[in-house]
Parts: sequence; structure tokens; C-alpha cells
Amino acid sequence: MEVTSLEKFGRRLRIAMIGGGLGSYIGESHRIALRADGLWDLVAGVFSRDYSLSKATGRQLLIDPERVYTDHHELIRAESLRPDRVDAVIVATRPSSHAGIVIALLEAGFHVVSEKPLTSSVDEAIAVEDALVRSGRRLLLTHCYSGYPMVRMARDMILRGDLGRVTAVDTEFANGAYAAGAPADAWRLGSAEAGEAGMLVDLGTHALQLATYVTGARVSEVAARLDRLSPGHEIYDSAFLDLTFDNGAIGRCWSTYQAAGAVHGLRLSVYGDRGSLAWDHESAEVMWWRPVDGPATLLTKAGPMATDGALTASRFTAGHPDGYGLAFANLYRDFAEALIAESVGNDPGHFLSRLPGVEDGVHTLDVVEGALASHTADHARVKVPTRTRLH
Amino acid sequence: MEVTSLEKFGRRLRIAMIGGGLGSYIGESHRIALRADGLWDLVAGVFSRDYSLSKATGRQLLIDPERVYTDHHELIRAESLRPDRVDAVIVATRPSSHAGIVIALLEAGFHVVSEKPLTSSVDEAIAVEDALVRSGRRLLLTHCYSGYPMVRMARDMILRGDLGRVTAVDTEFANGAYAAGAPADAWRLGSAEAGEAGMLVDLGTHALQLATYVTGARVSEVAARLDRLSPGHEIYDSAFLDLTFDNGAIGRCWSTYQAAGAVHGLRLSVYGDRGSLAWDHESAEVMWWRPVDGPATLLTKAGPMATDGALTASRFTAGHPDGYGLAFANLYRDFAEALIAESVGNDPGHFLSRLPGVEDGVHTLDVVEGALASHTADHARVKVPTRTRLH
Amino acid sequence: MEVTSLEKFGRRLRIAMIGGGLGSYIGESHRIALRADGLWDLVAGVFSRDYSLSKATGRQLLIDPERVYTDHHELIRAESLRPDRVDAVIVATRPSSHAGIVIALLEAGFHVVSEKPLTSSVDEAIAVEDALVRSGRRLLLTHCYSGYPMVRMARDMILRGDLGRVTAVDTEFANGAYAAGAPADAWRLGSAEAGEAGMLVDLGTHALQLATYVTGARVSEVAARLDRLSPGHEIYDSAFLDLTFDNGAIGRCWSTYQAAGAVHGLRLSVYGDRGSLAWDHESAEVMWWRPVDGPATLLTKAGPMATDGALTASRFTAGHPDGYGLAFANLYRDFAEALIAESVGNDPGHFLSRLPGVEDGVHTLDVVEGALASHTADHARVKVPTRTRLH
Amino acid sequence: MEVTSLEKFGRRLRIAMIGGGLGSYIGESHRIALRADGLWDLVAGVFSRDYSLSKATGRQLLIDPERVYTDHHELIRAESLRPDRVDAVIVATRPSSHAGIVIALLEAGFHVVSEKPLTSSVDEAIAVEDALVRSGRRLLLTHCYSGYPMVRMARDMILRGDLGRVTAVDTEFANGAYAAGAPADAWRLGSAEAGEAGMLVDLGTHALQLATYVTGARVSEVAARLDRLSPGHEIYDSAFLDLTFDNGAIGRCWSTYQAAGAVHGLRLSVYGDRGSLAWDHESAEVMWWRPVDGPATLLTKAGPMATDGALTASRFTAGHPDGYGLAFANLYRDFAEALIAESVGNDPGHFLSRLPGVEDGVHTLDVVEGALASHTADHARVKVPTRTRLH
Repeated sequence: MEVTSLEKFGRRLRIAMIGGGLGSYIGESHRIALRADGLWDLVAGVFSRDYSLSKATGRQLLIDPERVYTDHHELIRAESLRPDRVDAVIVATRPSSHAGIVIALLEAGFHVVSEKPLTSSVDEAIAVEDALVRSGRRLLLTHCYSGYPMVRMARDMILRGDLGRVTAVDTEFANGAYAAGAPADAWRLGSAEAGEAGMLVDLGTHALQLATYVTGARVSEVAARLDRLSPGHEIYDSAFLDLTFDNGAIGRCWSTYQAAGAVHGLRLSVYGDRGSLAWDHESAEVMWWRPVDGPATLLTKAGPMATDGALTASRFTAGHPDGYGLAFANLYRDFAEALIAESVGNDPGHFLSRLPGVEDGVHTLDVVEGALASHTADHARVKVPTRTRLH
Repeated sequence: MEVTSLEKFGRRLRIAMIGGGLGSYIGESHRIALRADGLWDLVAGVFSRDYSLSKATGRQLLIDPERVYTDHHELIRAESLRPDRVDAVIVATRPSSHAGIVIALLEAGFHVVSEKPLTSSVDEAIAVEDALVRSGRRLLLTHCYSGYPMVRMARDMILRGDLGRVTAVDTEFANGAYAAGAPADAWRLGSAEAGEAGMLVDLGTHALQLATYVTGARVSEVAARLDRLSPGHEIYDSAFLDLTFDNGAIGRCWSTYQAAGAVHGLRLSVYGDRGSLAWDHESAEVMWWRPVDGPATLLTKAGPMATDGALTASRFTAGHPDGYGLAFANLYRDFAEALIAESVGNDPGHFLSRLPGVEDGVHTLDVVEGALASHTADHARVKVPTRTRLH
Repeated sequence: MEVTSLEKFGRRLRIAMIGGGLGSYIGESHRIALRADGLWDLVAGVFSRDYSLSKATGRQLLIDPERVYTDHHELIRAESLRPDRVDAVIVATRPSSHAGIVIALLEAGFHVVSEKPLTSSVDEAIAVEDALVRSGRRLLLTHCYSGYPMVRMARDMILRGDLGRVTAVDTEFANGAYAAGAPADAWRLGSAEAGEAGMLVDLGTHALQLATYVTGARVSEVAARLDRLSPGHEIYDSAFLDLTFDNGAIGRCWSTYQAAGAVHGLRLSVYGDRGSLAWDHESAEVMWWRPVDGPATLLTKAGPMATDGALTASRFTAGHPDGYGLAFANLYRDFAEALIAESVGNDPGHFLSRLPGVEDGVHTLDVVEGALASHTADHARVKVPTRTRLH
Repeated sequence: MEVTSLEKFGRRLRIAMIGGGLGSYIGESHRIALRADGLWDLVAGVFSRDYSLSKATGRQLLIDPERVYTDHHELIRAESLRPDRVDAVIVATRPSSHAGIVIALLEAGFHVVSEKPLTSSVDEAIAVEDALVRSGRRLLLTHCYSGYPMVRMARDMILRGDLGRVTAVDTEFANGAYAAGAPADAWRLGSAEAGEAGMLVDLGTHALQLATYVTGARVSEVAARLDRLSPGHEIYDSAFLDLTFDNGAIGRCWSTYQAAGAVHGLRLSVYGDRGSLAWDHESAEVMWWRPVDGPATLLTKAGPMATDGALTASRFTAGHPDGYGLAFANLYRDFAEALIAESVGNDPGHFLSRLPGVEDGVHTLDVVEGALASHTADHARVKVPTRTRLH
């Protein structure tokens, strides 16, 4: 399903990256994703706080050395002056630096692709939201799992009522990343950088975003139990959340680094009074649909039950896995389509409506802060703020 | 793995059944289970409160019409006088009647096989426990899932330390039995007979018993959220439990009748700092073992990693499923072995130690009552009593 | 689904066993199967050629010592004189002795339950068939897999046309029983006892019986490649069969002891022009139904798509595995029902039609002998005889 | 795992495409694959025999209109004169046109990426091989499945001896593409374009290439049964192959369009005397390893058992599926690396050795022609030529 609007736009979109230097897993993921459809050219960047690493990254990516900058201030200043200035900038730095960089980019008129979490606090997230509204620019928050065909299909099926009234949502992101001892990314386990709720921010927000993405509902109340299952961890490495959604459904969310042996561990089940769906990222190409009145069926992205959302998110036929890279690429493609649509005077709403954005960032952080408050208040049920939606 | 002690005993054990008449699912299950090894003869009973149904059941089972009784009082009186009196009696009536019947049987000197739940309240359960201790008889509580080879293997692996320190236990019994509307067993949904926590007693106790059976730990605290996901239900049809175990592990347990589309839904995962186990009753023959330092392996009841508990609970080689009937039969076989051992002067401890009994009944009801208390107290964490263990 | 005709008959059926002494896997399997429904009493036997083992078996099974015989001749003689003579006799000896024993039993008026293979050659099998016809007795051939609910369901679905025109049948019984070296049952690997095609007779006949059982078709042509994958084996330890069925379908069958690492390895897929079914004994409780015009569905023994054959073969609800023992028990139950029906003047056809019998024995051996002939003739396609059917 | 040699080369490789216009599935697949790593620029093409479609494709892909040619002759002529001429050309036309185009490209000095099958006959394939050798250029044959991490891991494990002596290879590409009636690509079913063995060429060669790729063995003998399972098909729509490999292993290969309901259907199992591997494209991220002396393990691309081949072919960590697009991209990346290595004076052997090439094309067509000969000779076993290997 190749894009059809590039011809109208007349060129590829230009993008810069902040963070994501050589050896950065997330940097490589973004680059694979943005290349997939030939809609973006990565032409500038600040790939690392270490300028020599940044320059090495630029050389390997064949980026004009002039456009490899020392920091985001320089990037903004220099790019703003170029006739071929970048259309958008990817922010793939550590969460604590997001707010400042993103707000500066928006104020300078750049669209932003922000790695999640949006920021490291709700207050910062709201500041970003304010800046976004003032700027008139667009922001993509790369909750990458929402790009999967089967996740889009779940959303379509739930929103069109296949499951009937949604009664329960069970989601988890429970893996064993740090169960076996010394981790690769030690900053994730230190409360200094990540905060006490760092694991929840890292993993839990993905699970929460999935749950709200597919149901169209928001969390209205949360109760939380946070634990340190590994005695050596500063942060809470396990979080049980008890959720109430604004559509009346109940929910659970377990996120942890200590589910020993689990490879990835992102899962979602949604129950309604007419049937249930279950999706597991480790077998991302399929989804179980269990109607109350028939046998369990294993849905694929094509076939009689495929929805429009699944079909447009699939590059290959059923049986040929799209995979994580192309799920991620769907975010970049939809974002490009939205920017192009807007630039040629069309309504970008269709594309934006299926993309995670600032609202997801604010809401998932609202739930995280509610969870911390609940834990502190001995597991009490805490209200999650209802905020006006952007789109 | 056939039994070897019957010869010493010189005859089969004789058993009667109260409840479980023709058309009773649980009655048929018990009969299949007790026949499997040729250790028991079902020779008497009160199969229904409806005497004509009871007699019809007796005729079909070729039971001497004289030993089909009108109620348990008559059974006790008449059997007590016979030289060939039954050794044990199965109680498969509704939970609310258990305590009275079981205590009467014990006081009359019969061993008891009690369908779960043990009783309908902790107070009753303790009364049964007292009667049991006074009587010197034995009581088997048929938490049938604990008879599966893979469950026995999980227990062996956890107790011998394969998982290291147990950190988290995630269990659920979440099916869609009553998601589609009108149920077969309406009494289960009415609070009159089942009590408001009837679903928890029906399903949750199985999940809780499994969790404690395989870990050897007890629940020390519980917080609960109880819901009526179907507007028409008197009872709570969904229960989220947040658990703390006396070995320091955290845990979750979801039980519900409203997991639309789910066929059976009993699952257990146990995480330790060296690996995790996951078992799902719908694929009862296998169990995932995910060590922190190796690939996931799919354990079967035989093979290099099989434990003694798995081997003795398996009648067939790996690849030939034992199934529910023979898992259930393991309880009857172990109970027979214990009674025979005791009768010939041997220690029955080996057999009793792996059988669910009154202690499981008391403890799971303790958790249920704690859950009700927590729910009433707005989700507060409630202590679960620690009681002295029988064996 | 308990039996309802026992009451009419007024007593349990009496049965003896030849072979199957203590420690015999197949003997224990038969005993578990025949006990399950309380329809049979095992009351006599020749459990081993070793009389002391036979007597020890009898003692453990609480069998009257008078009815533990030295050989089948004595059993026939003695039982024939008793007023409470056995109704049927199980033959669980090595294949080479089947024909002689079975024919003697039939001629003496006993019904026979024969372990498979029926005999060790087609000629012997035909002699058994002749004896059976002359005797007016009944013979059950324990191709135990045909007792599974899902196999019965496959048969129902295919025969009622759900798959449309059957085009291809792919079956295999490929396990690693002897891949790792020294086997437990060495006689299976020696051509002296088992014959060169011993593995085909042992495993291949199960796969072939399944294929013909569910499709109602017979093999009309076979081409075969036989190999010794392990250099140390006298027998062919692998057989690729290329099949043509009398309904026009093509087929394949791989049987082997050398599929290293495979636990059990019995599988069947049937393709028609409207969909396909796939069943794997290692997950015997479920079956994939893949219609050409809808998503793949995972059938269980209950639920909207369950057939009568599946329901009557299930003792438990979906999600509670019946397992191998109760699948096997279905053969004993149906056989009992047939004998009882006949004895009270009813037509046993309904029960016999779903039981494997002498015809299956003759046909699968016909295919094995065709396969040997094909292999000798350098893989040529060989016709398989068409014989008149008994029922 | 990003490429590190681009910097040395100083620019991206330039490539043209013949065939693969808008709406062409395979064209889009190639474009996704070549973009993934930023190593190639698609800058020219003849995207269709329909020049207006070709131009429309060029416009959408933002290709310089001057470089959208009317046919491959013009492409060769014009590109040969340009200082920025393309380094390589993709041939994604119908098989019958491959030989002529590929030979012309090679003779003009272009490297070639050929869609499979290499040609429509062995004679043509040998002509391509000759042209390749004469030209000194490189040819990549896009047997895309060989780019999967788990396929590379299977190859590594087998070649380093984990399975011991390989005894049997069971592969299939059995799907239901045309089981339900009217197909999308009717030319595939007509013997005019595809040839009688068109299905074998389309599907069977993938399965055969996989089998030889992972084992390092070649097919030395083949016997075949070809059928038309759908009465309306001109071509053989099912092929059972019986194989002998030059390492002594036996093998089977079923390819068909008529496996009703099967989604994709490419599978491979390899058995050795120390264990077996099984991979199924529908769950491409994992592979079963079943050692003779341990439990079955589910391998993933990372973790303790991961091989170098798997790691270098993985862009994401285990649990994040790479998918078909990035498996395909591995071929383009390795091919780019080989061309760059050669251009800077390094040995490209490391990269070429894991890429499918002309040899795979010749060999799989040799097997197909052997299969046709066998079928015509009534299933006789036919020798497959042994040819000298290129690399």
C-alpha cells in the first residue's frame, strides 16, 4: 500500500534527529522506520551530546557535515535560516530533556516527532501541549505499537461495536529485561534519571496507550501497587495498576522489568459482552477473536474480517509478517501524509486521528502520577484528570 | 504407574456419594475419577434430594437398591451398621450444605471426599477442621487441578529452588461461562444460594489453591475489587485480587464469569529471580519454563526435566495427554493410598502432603472473606489470618 | 455423557486380558480405558507368558486366582465352562501371536478386543476376518486415536460435506522414539519379531487408520520409500508413502522412529475445496478449521460447531481435556454398548459403525504390504486391493 | 545493526528497476527492502510494459522523468552513457523474460538483482550463469526467506553440527492461494505463461532453496507426483516431491496452491541424529529446537543460543519482529556490502556466501525439471545434475 500523495508535494519531507547516535537502538529504529516508504530524508542532526560521536554518525549516514550540529540550539538557529530547512525534527534523547527541546523546536516552527514518554512529568507535558497549540505545528509521539495492523484492526473492531459493550481491559508489559542482573541501560534503573516511576513511564505507558488507543476510552481512576522485586533497584520495578475507564470498563495493567524469562511481554486483551480480542506483541501478526457465540478465530491482517485500518497498515499479504520496523514506519507514513495534506490544503484529520500524539503523552503521564499518588496513599483509588482533547 | 498396595489391603475401598445424580456434571467427574485405577467401588449413595432421581441413578450404576438412601442421616445410620460399611463418602452437594453433612460423616467415622468449596464460610470451614481433628479421619478436598502432572512438576521445581526466590505469582480463572446470557446453573449467579462472593468461591478458590499449592506459600494480605460486569447479576461476577504472600512474593488473581469467549481460563504463572513457569489448563500437558539464562523450553511430563511428582502423576508417556479425568483420578488414587497405608500401619504423610485438604479449604475461604472486607473498605489492604497447619 | 443401557443389561460386562502384565504400558492403558465408565469388570487373564508375573498381576488386580490362566488355551477351556464366563477377551500380546489367539477365541464364542495391528500379515488378517464372520462375534481393534472427540468431529464434518470435495490428506506419525539410541522395546527394532516393515505396522497403521476413519475413503494405490535412517536398525525406520484414495484424493503419510526430538508426532490434515482441518495428537483437544472464505478457527469439542460425534465422545466440557485414557475408553464404551444392544435385541450398528474393526486391520496391512512391494519395485505405484466391507 | 561501510564508499548505490510498477506487489516489496538501510537509491526504471503506467510510477517515486525508460534496451543504452549510471538493476518482470533481460544487463556491465525464478528453464539459467561468469558482475536472486534471522540461525546450527548427521528434511510451501476460485494473478495458472510446472517454479523453488540453504546440501535425486487438484487448472497445482540429498539425507517437499485455508504455508523441518529444527514462516521470529536429550526449546534471534548469522540479520531485539520486509532487506544489505567491499578492494566472499544467487536458480530449476521428468516416467526416481558451484 504505497503512498500516493508524494507526487503532489513534489519532494520528500526533510527531517533532523536529536539523539540516536551510532549504537543507539532507538535511533536505528527511527531511521529504519522513516526510510521505509521513501517519504522522508534524514538530512541533519545532533546525534549525541558527544560531538565526535555525532559527527561519526553523520558521516556514516552520508549527512552533510554542515548539518551535524553541536546542540539543539544550534540546529534550530542554523536550520531556520536555510531555504531547505528541515520540516520536522525527531527528539530521541532521554525523557528528562524532552520538554525543553520539543518546546524550542515547536516555537521555532518545526514539526516534532517525539520519542515516548512525551516528557518526564505531567506539568512538562502540559507545557508541551500549550506550545504545540500556540505553534500550530504537529507532534507525533512514537508509541510504535499503535502502528501494527492488528492493533489498528482491534481499534476498528471495538469502535464499530463488534465486542458490544466493553467490560474489561487487561494489558501488560511484563518482561524480564533486568531480571538477570546487570542491565545494558543502567540509567533506566536509577531514580536520578528515570525517577521512581521510571519503569512505569518506560513500559507502563506503552500498555496504557495501547489500551486507550484501541478502546477510545480514557482512564478515569487508578489504584496502584508499586514494588521493588529486585532488592538492588532504586526504582519501582513492578507496578500493578487497577483501572477504571471513562466508558465504565474495568482494567488491569502490569508492567515490570522482573518477569524473568519473558522475551517482550506486551499484551492486550479487551472483553466486551459480545466477545473478546487478545493480542500479544510476540505474535504481532495475529489476534484472537473470541465471540460469545462461536469458536475462537485467529484473525490476520487480510481476509474476510480485515478492517480498513488493518489493510492500510499492512504492506504485505497475510502470512508475510510486517514486523516492528514497518509498524513503526506506519507512524512516519501517516505523519508524512498529514503534513503533506495540510501543506496542500487538505484536511489532515484522517491521518492524525490514528496517530498517537501529545494527548496520549499527557494522559499516560496523568495515569503514572495517579499511580504514584495511589501507592503513597496506601493503594487508595485516585481520580485521573479529564482534560480537553486536542483532536 | 499402577498402584501396588491394593494387594496388601485385600479389597477395594468402598465409597458412597451424596449428590451427583444423573445429569450432574460434577457427579460424573467424580465417578470417572474414582474408577480409573480400580481402587474404589461406589456402592452406596444419596444421589439427589429427589429420591426418585436418586434411585434411578443407583439403578443405572448397578448399586444395591438397599444402599440408595433418602438422605445423609439415613446413609450414616444404615452404613454404620453394615459389616461392609463404606470407608469414605463423597460430598458433592451445594456448598451451603457441606458443613453439616461433612461434620456428621466425620463424627460417624467416615473419611470424606469433599467437593470444593469446603464450606460456604470460614466459620463453617473451621468447624469442619475441628471435627476432622477430633475424628481422626481423613478429608480430601477435590481441587482437581492439583492432580495434573505439570502442576505437580511446577510444585517440585519451585520447592527445590529452580526458580530461585519467588517474586510474583499471577493466576487467573477468567472464563466466559455466563458472558452470553442465560446460564445452565442459575443458582451460581443468585446471591441467595451462592452468596455475593459466589463466583470467587467457585472460580477464585481454584486459582488461589493452585497458587499456594505450587509455591508452598500462603496469602498474607489481599486487596480486592469486585464488580458486576453484567448488569443482571446479583453476585459479583468479576474479582481482581491484589495479593501478598507470606514468602514476600506479590501476586494477582482475576476470576470472572464474564471473560467473553474464553473457554476455560485457568492459568498460572510464577516468577522467580532465576526463571518463570507458566501453565494454562487449556494446554494442560505442557508448561513453559523460561530461565533467565536460556531459551524458553516447553516442558512435558516425561523427559530429562521431569520431576518425581510429574512422573507419578502420569499414566501415559509424553505426547499422550492424561487429561482432566486422570488428573482428578490422581486425587482419588493418592487418597486411597493414604487410607490403605494408614490401615496397614504405614505413614500416609507422603500421599497426604500432596493432596488438597481442609487447610486449603480454610485458607482459600479466608482469602475470599478478606477480599469481601477489602472491597467493602474501598480496596484497602486486609490481613489474611495465619492459622496453624494440619499437616 | 454416561451410558444409559447398563441398567437394561443388569450387570457389567466381564472381560479377560491376554498379555498386558505388570509393567506393560499397553496393558495398563487398556485397564484404565475399560474401567472408566464402569461397564466392564476385568475378571480373568493370562497376563504374561511368565506365569509368575501373570499371577502377580492377578493378585494386584484382585482377580480370583482360579481365573489367572497359564495360556490362552486354558483360558478358553476354563472360561467356556463357567456360568459367569467372560463376555470378551482382550488380546494385547505381540502382533505375531494375534491371529492364532484371536481365531481361537472367536471360535470359542468370545468377543475380542484386539490390540493393533490386527495380525502380522494380510493373510492372517483375512483368516481372522473369516473366523469373525463365521463366529457371529464382534471384534474391536483398538486404534485408540479414533476415540478422540476431535477425531470424531473431523469425521462428522468431512462426511457431512463441510470440506467440500476432499482433495488431499496429509498424515504422519513421526516421532523420535528411537532417535537417541538404545530403545526400551528392542523387539520393535529387530526384523525377527517385528518384520522389516515393523515400524510401518507399529506407527504407520495408526496414521493410515486415522486418515481412512475421518474421510470414509480407502487407499487405492500406494508408492513407498522405506529407509533405515539409523545405520544400526534392522527394520526400516522411516517410510514415506504416496497415496491415492478411492475418492480421488491424493495423500501422504510419513511414519518414523527417527524424527529426533518429536514427542509423539501423530498428525492429520485433510484438505477439501471448501476448507481444511488439521489435528495434532499433542494438542488433541482442539482442531483447526480453515475455511476458504473465513478466518482460521480453533474448534473445541463443545460450542456452536460441535458435532454429535464429538459431544458423545466428550465426558467433560470444552477446556477440560478428555485425554488419551478417555479417548481409549470411548472404544470400550461403544463396544460395550454394541454388545449390550445386541444382547437385548437392538441394532448395534450405530455403535459399531464408529469403531475400528477387522476391516481397518485388513486395510492398513494391505497398504503396508503394498508399500513393501512398491519399495522393492523401485518406488512404483502399487494397487491396494479393494475388499468387501464387513459393515 | 547498521551498516558501517557506506562511509568508505562515499555515496549510496544507485539502482534501477525493470517491472514492479504501481500496484505490483513484488515491486513494492523490493522498494521497501532496498530502502530499509539507506544503502540504495532507486533512480531509474522501466516499471511497466505500459509506458504510461511506468511514467506514473516514476512520478510517484520522484524519479527523474529522463530516467524512466520505455524498455530495458533503452535503459541499458542511456544509463551506460551517464556518469551517474546505476550500479545495479532489479529485474522483476515475468519469469519468461528474465533470461534475455538479465543477460543483456550483465553484458552491459550492470550488477543484477533478479526476482526468482532465475529463468523459466534450466537452459536459460545456464545461459545466465555463463553470462554472469563472463561479465564479472554479481547477481542476487531474491529468495527472500533466506534473509530471516531464524533461517540464518538454522543454517549456522546445522553447518556447525548441532543436529549431528542430517537424516531428513521436510519442507513445504502449501497454501490455499487459488483454492477458493478466481485468482488475482491468472497468468500463474495458465500453462502458456507459467508452464505446466509453474506452481512448482513459483512455490516449490522457495521451499527447495530453503532446504538447500540451511543444510548446505544439494538434491541428488527426485521423484515426483504432480496433480491438478482443481479441475479447472491448466498447470499442476500440487506437487509431492520425494528427495535424496547429496549428504545422504532423505526429504519431502509439498508445494500447492490448493491447501484450502492455509494462509502462507512455507515450512521447514530438518532432522539430525542429535535433534531437529522446525521453522514456519507464519511465525517467522521463532524456531523450535528439539534436541534428542532435552526438552523442546523455542529459539529466538537473540539470547544465549543465537548465532552470528541470526544476530547480524536482526535489526531489533528478540520480541520485536523483524518481519518480511527486513528479511528481504537483508538480501539488499548484504548485496550492497558485497559490492562496496569489492569496489574498495576487499573480499566480498563473506557477504556473497550467505546470499542466494545463480547457483540456487540453476539448482532449483534442475529439481523442477527432474520432477517433471519423474512424473512423466510414472514416478521413477530421476537424477538431478551435479554442477560445479560458482562460489
